[in-house]
Amino acid sequence: QFVARPVGVCSMMKLPVQTSPEGLDAAFVGVPLDTGTSNRPGARFGPRQIRAESCMVRTYNPSTGAAPFHSLMVADIGDVNVNLYNLQESCRQIREAYQKIVAAGCIPLTLGGDHTITYPILQAVAEKHGPVGLVHVDAHTDTGDTALGEKIYHGTPFRRCVEEGLLDCKRVVQIGIRGSSYTPDPYKYCRDQGFRVVLAEDCWLKSLVPLMGEVRKQMGDKPIYISFDIDGLDPAYAPGTGTPEIAGLTPAQALEIIRGCKGLNIVGGDLVEVAPIYDASGNTALMGANLLFEMLCALPRVKTI
Amino acid sequence: QFVARPVGVCSMMKLPVQTSPEGLDAAFVGVPLDTGTSNRPGARFGPRQIRAESCMVRTYNPSTGAAPFHSLMVADIGDVNVNLYNLQESCRQIREAYQKIVAAGCIPLTLGGDHTITYPILQAVAEKHGPVGLVHVDAHTDTGDTALGEKIYHGTPFRRCVEEGLLDCKRVVQIGIRGSSYTPDPYKYCRDQGFRVVLAEDCWLKSLVPLMGEVRKQMGDKPIYISFDIDGLDPAYAPGTGTPEIAGLTPAQALEIIRGCKGLNIVGGDLVEVAPIYDASGNTALMGANLLFEMLCALPRVKTI
Amino acid sequence: QFVARPVGVCSMMKLPVQTSPEGLDAAFVGVPLDTGTSNRPGARFGPRQIRAESCMVRTYNPSTGAAPFHSLMVADIGDVNVNLYNLQESCRQIREAYQKIVAAGCIPLTLGGDHTITYPILQAVAEKHGPVGLVHVDAHTDTGDTALGEKIYHGTPFRRCVEEGLLDCKRVVQIGIRGSSYTPDPYKYCRDQGFRVVLAEDCWLKSLVPLMGEVRKQMGDKPIYISFDIDGLDPAYAPGTGTPEIAGLTPAQALEIIRGCKGLNIVGGDLVEVAPIYDASGNTALMGANLLFEMLCALPRVKTI
Amino acid sequence: QFVARPVGVCSMMKLPVQTSPEGLDAAFVGVPLDTGTSNRPGARFGPRQIRAESCMVRTYNPSTGAAPFHSLMVADIGDVNVNLYNLQESCRQIREAYQKIVAAGCIPLTLGGDHTITYPILQAVAEKHGPVGLVHVDAHTDTGDTALGEKIYHGTPFRRCVEEGLLDCKRVVQIGIRGSSYTPDPYKYCRDQGFRVVLAEDCWLKSLVPLMGEVRKQMGDKPIYISFDIDGLDPAYAPGTGTPEIAGLTPAQALEIIRGCKGLNIVGGDLVEVAPIYDASGNTALMGANLLFEMLCALPRVKTI
Amino acid sequence: QFVARPVGVCSMMKLPVQTSPEGLDAAFVGVPLDTGTSNRPGARFGPRQIRAESCMVRTYNPSTGAAPFHSLMVADIGDVNVNLYNLQESCRQIREAYQKIVAAGCIPLTLGGDHTITYPILQAVAEKHGPVGLVHVDAHTDTGDTALGEKIYHGTPFRRCVEEGLLDCKRVVQIGIRGSSYTPDPYKYCRDQGFRVVLAEDCWLKSLVPLMGEVRKQMGDKPIYISFDIDGLDPAYAPGTGTPEIAGLTPAQALEIIRGCKGLNIVGGDLVEVAPIYDASGNTALMGANLLFEMLCALPRVKTI
Amino acid sequence: QFVARPVGVCSMMKLPVQTSPEGLDAAFVGVPLDTGTSNRPGARFGPRQIRAESCMVRTYNPSTGAAPFHSLMVADIGDVNVNLYNLQESCRQIREAYQKIVAAGCIPLTLGGDHTITYPILQAVAEKHGPVGLVHVDAHTDTGDTALGEKIYHGTPFRRCVEEGLLDCKRVVQIGIRGSSYTPDPYKYCRDQGFRVVLAEDCWLKSLVPLMGEVRKQMGDKPIYISFDIDGLDPAYAPGTGTPEIAGLTPAQALEIIRGCKGLNIVGGDLVEVAPIYDASGNTALMGANLLFEMLCALPRVKTI
Ligand SMILES: [Mn+2]
Ligand SMILES: [Mn+2]
Ligand SMILES: [Mn+2]
Ligand SMILES: [Mn+2]
Ligand SMILES: [Mn+2]
Ligand SMILES: [Mn+2]
Ligand SMILES: [Mn+2]
Ligand SMILES: [Mn+2]
Ligand SMILES: [Mn+2]
Ligand SMILES: [Mn+2]
Ligand SMILES: [Mn+2]
Ligand SMILES: [Mn+2]
Repeated sequence: QFVARPVGVCSMMKLPVQTSPEGLDAAFVGVPLDTGTSNRPGARFGPRQIRAESCMVRTYNPSTGAAPFHSLMVADIGDVNVNLYNLQESCRQIREAYQKIVAAGCIPLTLGGDHTITYPILQAVAEKHGPVGLVHVDAHTDTGDTALGEKIYHGTPFRRCVEEGLLDCKRVVQIGIRGSSYTPDPYKYCRDQGFRVVLAEDCWLKSLVPLMGEVRKQMGDKPIYISFDIDGLDPAYAPGTGTPEIAGLTPAQALEIIRGCKGLNIVGGDLVEVAPIYDASGNTALMGANLLFEMLCALPRVKTI
Repeated sequence: QFVARPVGVCSMMKLPVQTSPEGLDAAFVGVPLDTGTSNRPGARFGPRQIRAESCMVRTYNPSTGAAPFHSLMVADIGDVNVNLYNLQESCRQIREAYQKIVAAGCIPLTLGGDHTITYPILQAVAEKHGPVGLVHVDAHTDTGDTALGEKIYHGTPFRRCVEEGLLDCKRVVQIGIRGSSYTPDPYKYCRDQGFRVVLAEDCWLKSLVPLMGEVRKQMGDKPIYISFDIDGLDPAYAPGTGTPEIAGLTPAQALEIIRGCKGLNIVGGDLVEVAPIYDASGNTALMGANLLFEMLCALPRVKTI
Repeated sequence: QFVARPVGVCSMMKLPVQTSPEGLDAAFVGVPLDTGTSNRPGARFGPRQIRAESCMVRTYNPSTGAAPFHSLMVADIGDVNVNLYNLQESCRQIREAYQKIVAAGCIPLTLGGDHTITYPILQAVAEKHGPVGLVHVDAHTDTGDTALGEKIYHGTPFRRCVEEGLLDCKRVVQIGIRGSSYTPDPYKYCRDQGFRVVLAEDCWLKSLVPLMGEVRKQMGDKPIYISFDIDGLDPAYAPGTGTPEIAGLTPAQALEIIRGCKGLNIVGGDLVEVAPIYDASGNTALMGANLLFEMLCALPRVKTI
Repeated sequence: QFVARPVGVCSMMKLPVQTSPEGLDAAFVGVPLDTGTSNRPGARFGPRQIRAESCMVRTYNPSTGAAPFHSLMVADIGDVNVNLYNLQESCRQIREAYQKIVAAGCIPLTLGGDHTITYPILQAVAEKHGPVGLVHVDAHTDTGDTALGEKIYHGTPFRRCVEEGLLDCKRVVQIGIRGSSYTPDPYKYCRDQGFRVVLAEDCWLKSLVPLMGEVRKQMGDKPIYISFDIDGLDPAYAPGTGTPEIAGLTPAQALEIIRGCKGLNIVGGDLVEVAPIYDASGNTALMGANLLFEMLCALPRVKTI
Repeated sequence: QFVARPVGVCSMMKLPVQTSPEGLDAAFVGVPLDTGTSNRPGARFGPRQIRAESCMVRTYNPSTGAAPFHSLMVADIGDVNVNLYNLQESCRQIREAYQKIVAAGCIPLTLGGDHTITYPILQAVAEKHGPVGLVHVDAHTDTGDTALGEKIYHGTPFRRCVEEGLLDCKRVVQIGIRGSSYTPDPYKYCRDQGFRVVLAEDCWLKSLVPLMGEVRKQMGDKPIYISFDIDGLDPAYAPGTGTPEIAGLTPAQALEIIRGCKGLNIVGGDLVEVAPIYDASGNTALMGANLLFEMLCALPRVKTI
Repeated sequence: QFVARPVGVCSMMKLPVQTSPEGLDAAFVGVPLDTGTSNRPGARFGPRQIRAESCMVRTYNPSTGAAPFHSLMVADIGDVNVNLYNLQESCRQIREAYQKIVAAGCIPLTLGGDHTITYPILQAVAEKHGPVGLVHVDAHTDTGDTALGEKIYHGTPFRRCVEEGLLDCKRVVQIGIRGSSYTPDPYKYCRDQGFRVVLAEDCWLKSLVPLMGEVRKQMGDKPIYISFDIDGLDPAYAPGTGTPEIAGLTPAQALEIIRGCKGLNIVGGDLVEVAPIYDASGNTALMGANLLFEMLCALPRVKTI
């Protein structure tokens, strides 16, 4: 209120920028990688634009009563450096960066970047916390095996995580799944692992509050991670993304999902696949900024006033 | 039907343009001011673009049966001149212009402009009609006290109106309110004044027809004013605006609200915060043009056929 | 999965391109005409952009189980040549091209182009199949008589079809109709013919599954045609179109309508009025590509797996 | 200076709007037709956008000293109605409208619209003034015979004019011509008529002041018409047009051409092919507005101060 | 080279961010104010976007040999806070902020913001250095007296500076001036003060190296300030600005001007009027970033290698 | 002339599409790879958009008299498949595809894609023809050694080519080079190899016809390759590219360069770095289409008429 919105070198929510996670309870961190994208690139500029549009986000959450900055030490710790020309190497860089973050006891809230990045993030997170539960919002299950002969791209992170034992498969829910497919039963792999797959069409015209009650039971007390692919939303609300699918979730449902995670033992979260150039208004990035703020508000130990 | 849509120097709905409100029952009037905006500017071009896109709006309203041009003398009386470099002075210019409009017995329907303008408009309206009831659609309550040390900007008009006694506070409803806040209880001021605050989240997945039944009772027979900030709508439907908030109202709800005002003693209305450059499609302005037409259709003495 | 999405001279869904409909059960065909548009032009580039964005559409439909390419021979047979400077002549060209397509026993699925084109298409279709039932999704009834003194433009195709006996009028349903009008009862003509007119406002917040049950009964076993004007959808989901109207259908409803036609004797379909330049994201065309795929999946003899 | 730039129902240069040319020395008039376009449509919105951007144009021309409003009675007389669905009929409408304008002794300065419109305008102009000289700036000669079997579209106006004797062929110069062609010698027709064809490549890196000295001699004292296709300019300066060609003229050259016509007996002028949707900045329309102002300044009887 | 371009919280050229000018030889500083704009707003986001696009700018200048970071201590010191609702107050804030910067012996290189800001900047600069010479690149002289009744807006800064004795008027050159005007001799005021006014038309097709030789003589050894309004350039090169004028300078000329200041006693510089929303490509901001880097390279004490 | 411009599944210049190069003298081929980009991605859609905009390019070149389709068998042979997730593997795929093309005696004219692709293309070309001369138009020398630790990306192709002996280094010219740099003498490597480096600043305001006379002498009779990075042009003419630099070449100069290669033993050419999403007008792709057509016209054995 005392500084004009356009003012300032733009960090997430104008938080202080520091390079180390030491001393932080939670941190916003960017991963500007998009070379795992199968269709439209541009998510490398997601972190930059989410930070820019986050000047609209204020410090309290009157819907939930959360006052995150009264409760936690939070900063923007900048971006992980990535190797734009080598996905494997980028994954290594990301994993190592997140090992340091989680080692410091800091909960990472990630500004993506394409969904490939969740794989190395979860390597670091599971190394610390053991296999985690997963609340995964997406149009796609991202459990492909390979594409163009490669194991690593934005369509495979969760299969890689399963293979490496990073997920507690009975505590995985995927919400918003939809779209045409390369096989007649594209959800078989997920269900075989024990994932709960909630199709977008089962969400149409519904509040997701009841679903989230079930999800909270499914997740229990053990660590969980929230991975939110902006394409889980209908493209009307988030046109700036690389692999949009029609007939998706609404912003209200997105809020119900994240707010519905309150009380869970959240150890990290990400918001991925914002490709700003496909949305000149900036509103897709604004959506991302708000959803990341809501994740912050849902973290353990955030007090409500 | 006899003139092609792209033809003509574009006034609102291709109505005749006149400079005086004399002899008119209602008039469309533009206020191309946007220097009260806290984030993205551009609403100064709202009137121009709303007029341009209004070439899609026809003369009858088959949903309500309204035939406004059979009932009322209506024209486009152009724009109020504003002082882009001095908000206080602009407010004076607006107030004086509206004093003339209401003095002529003409109901003003305003093409904004940012929400600052509603303050001087209501000064003129209340001078004529006494304190008015208010149907206010917005993501924000716009009842801040100051920002950057200033009393006048687009976040404070309704507090200024309260302070000057322009509102009949028991007959104020604010619909679509949402978003993060600078204080834990951002609606306290409004409720302390007696306003009814209807949060967007209480509107999700609902028809607002029942709400509007209650609103009509609240408003009674006395004069009311409709102030519609386009950011009350979800940004999917109105991306071209300066301070968007996620998870807002739908166009259907917007129509239910305005149509639900039929029968009330409407003495003026405005549609504000259309910043066209943030929506290259023109559709935000088209939304504004339609909502202004719906306000016209809801005016007293408009017959239905 | 073995070819990267951006790769290839872009045909619909990367199907083989052939110039003749011979041997095909169904074909995608473009009609790049937009000179029948009353407001914003640009639908001439609809076919090109729908093909481009169709690289996101895969071969199976997990929602319905449809495996169209296991069941039918399908190709992209390119575009009908049109005379951009002479609407009458274009209509003749389109009619003759479709006479050949239907003569070959091939079901045409058309990438428009503005809605004018449905008139000559139905001339060819009805010549082969007799008067057809019609599932028409649109904001507009498109049953005007003339505009600017002309009988043929995108506001009149279905009146021309009625006059020529191409429609089985008791088996016509129009869904999504809305907007202001030039007359107090703009649906009179339709109802006088026996059409069922389903207003958008009667669809708000509803599943259309029940409606489609009724529509299936209305349509019976006889041939039907699906004509889907993208402006039937709310502009939030399809901003790239020429004559948008606020408060329209949702993508979920669009899917319910097309999937609800499964079991009917569909002899053709079109998706019209995509004007890509008004949607820089490409998402309106992506919507069109998906809806055309859904039409393909709903065709008779498409097996489910 | 006393009214803010965004203020006002936008006429050309905020001039008064009147429907009749009576009493005017010169008038701006719009012809919002684009159905003669071979590639990208959108010039139907040229007049609207040129008017909007003309709010930047002021009343004096310090480069030439012209003070047009001290010398001439000028107004914006709105748009000619056109039949968007019938090019022949539109041509008739335009011709008749311009017959009235020239009959009133008013010099028309036209906001196009695609280049088709110059044909009926010159029918009216030549009916009054006899065959006219022509200063034609364009990437294309627009002297094709037919396209898609049609005689009338934006590639043929000047052949039609030749055939009807509307041009004084020894007094025709075409400047800025370039681009690939359908025949090895695409300028033969023009040269056979006696036109001077000045290729863009002969203008590269040159002032056109010497050329215009020659042109003034070629034109002599008899009536001339200026037809300026915005695609004569390089697309860098005018991206918003339908059939751009690389390596065109510069704005400085455009000014040299129009200013170089000062002293000639100009009886009309047009600025065509501004298709605003292809230039979101509005700058192509701004270019058009400035060039039309320069034409006004170059008219006979405009005094310099 | 070791950090990917999209990586990092974006400061100018990825320089370290510090809040104090202490210890710096030069600093980049943003002034995100645009409420002095007469036409299109948006320059408030100039600093943000210039920083973002500056990721393309590297550390050496091979054209001039300058190695600024070998010679000077340079940082990005963030933005001056501004009062978006009160121009006078903003001017005070800017003046006070620059008083601190110049007091620290730090040369400010400003990312604007509209041209209003140069007035309070020069108040601070002249307070320290006495009346300064001025190299002013612009389409406009910005020496108006008032507009809309106000003394302060982006059309008047240099008249205010003259009135307060901030400029050494014999050492002022304005380059790139052009456009229509409100009076027949719009440059009279400037010439009366002793300014050299170099019209854009006198620059067409010319190298400005000779001009800059003369300018260096004019400026001598005493302090000078460089004020570069991006609209001095032709809109083809800088479409993202608020009051564009056709037929302006080229980027080569811009470089010749700034490089031509090498050797002068530059005590500050600014790059103003980048309104990014009018250029979705980001290239106007990239231009701004490069020109600011060139100003840095031209500073006294920058060594060449 | 007999098919409307928007009609057809879009191949380059509407040429027939075939998958094999057999029997062709020359072929257009796309390489939709952009994962070698250091800044803005999007060139993966270059081939698609260049094909789309090539509908404006006709069959004759009146400037040079070239009639390529009278002289050569030419087709569009579609795109090389690429591995978007693995640059090394993509390079292998490209090399192998081009080995087949050149083995068939077909001259490849490539639609890029980022500049990385020229490396594997030249591997195939030099394998057939021996070390080639190179006419390289670019803002950048693209002779870096590594970036982010990688040898292969769009900044290194020509160093890799040198190392593998693919270039005849005395017959290499680089034109349009400019911009800031990471080292004080960024052209040293090139000059050490014997390349001629022609800086953009040495081209300002000049015809390049004399330069090309010298280049033709430098190249002699032996095979040469043309590699045209669209960022060699000033961003005004080609905004849609990933790493723009200010103050570049003009389209006229681009034409002079390519036309100046006529008579040389051209064995291949490419046009790279068109990233269409950064230019909503499509004009950057149109530029690319025209320059590729000019390369075709300059090929050996193309007759002039
Ligand atoms: Mn995903
Ligand atoms: Mn996804
Ligand atoms: Mn408001
Ligand atoms: Mn609001
Ligand atoms: Mn329709
Ligand atoms: Mn419709
Ligand atoms: Mn033309
Ligand atoms: Mn032309
Ligand atoms: Mn200025
Ligand atoms: Mn200026
Ligand atoms: Mn390159
Ligand atoms: Mn380059």
